[in-house]
Amino acid sequence: MANRKAVQDARVAGKTIEKGLLIVHTGKGKGKSTAAFGLMLRAIGRGFRCGVVQFGKGAWQSGERSAIERFGDQIQWHTLGEGFTWETQDRARDVEAAKRAWAATLRLMADPAIRLIVLDELNIALRYDHLDIGEVVAALQARRGDLHIVVTGRNAKPEMIEAADLVTEMTPIKHHFAAGVKAQEGIEF
Amino acid sequence: MANRKAVQDARVAGKTIEKGLLIVHTGKGKGKSTAAFGLMLRAIGRGFRCGVVQFGKGAWQSGERSAIERFGDQIQWHTLGEGFTWETQDRARDVEAAKRAWAATLRLMADPAIRLIVLDELNIALRYDHLDIGEVVAALQARRGDLHIVVTGRNAKPEMIEAADLVTEMTPIKHHFAAGVKAQEGIEF
Repeated sequence: MANRKAVQDARVAGKTIEKGLLIVHTGKGKGKSTAAFGLMLRAIGRGFRCGVVQFGKGAWQSGERSAIERFGDQIQWHTLGEGFTWETQDRARDVEAAKRAWAATLRLMADPAIRLIVLDELNIALRYDHLDIGEVVAALQARRGDLHIVVTGRNAKPEMIEAADLVTEMTPIKHHFAAGVKAQEGIEF
Repeated sequence: MANRKAVQDARVAGKTIEKGLLIVHTGKGKGKSTAAFGLMLRAIGRGFRCGVVQFGKGAWQSGERSAIERFGDQIQWHTLGEGFTWETQDRARDVEAAKRAWAATLRLMADPAIRLIVLDELNIALRYDHLDIGEVVAALQARRGDLHIVVTGRNAKPEMIEAADLVTEMTPIKHHFAAGVKAQEGIEF
């Protein structure tokens, strides 16, 4: 195990490129948005200013909002989720909401003070072709060298995975809903 | 889609059991500890008091610690990770460290003010048999009805998965280390 540690140390020492990462959390399991939220907290702890754009109603709700408020203006939060209407199939309205959220994203990306941006449920807007995947990926790839971006949502498109530096799939192994247990305050909302 | 929403609403309404959840984040991918951290922040936002016990050096480092300090005594943090020596194969010392961490866990579980406990990397201590899986699972299953517990670490044992309400596997799809990019401040530490 000491040898394995030495090999690992040497391998890590060989990693010399500093760059802003494009991180994707996808898959059908829990934890995609929650892990993005945890990453944001780590970045805040390091003194980074962060931005959040919600491309859907998403998993970030009053619990997070309340906690986040303690960090004041270190976070810029764009709750554009209200505009989305997945249920009602009002496609024109959803496309408009996605475009507004994307415009907010581009403004955050242009702000040199912002070091981490979470694009929550962006994969879903892309899956429904509410935004052009080519345009989105090109803009994300053109990010500044010191800007990290986290994209969440199931069904990440191949173009997004190809562009990303780090992709994790959250896979559900077991879920308590199947056992009749309801969503729990402080955990699921 | 409106129909699907109605079916989903009916299904959610049918979930009537309130209980503290045992949640497991396992798999080789990123996000296990980070998602637990995000869950804790959600719970804090809801006004819950939380506890953390680290069963290894783990992924929670100065970024999180610094952010967490802003929540003052709403969180009890046990950094028992220092005692672990995975690299040096000092098994007796690791077993002692695991036992101290488990004793701290039992104290947190006995505190009725604590509503969420994260047992970071507990799966690893169990995998190395530093703690007895039967004893640990029995104690976790005997938790109060209003206490949620999140267990992280790869290679969750079958007994832990069997006991859990919610299990998510984080699977690595792509990692930037393979492309020579080093660990980034604010993201990985």
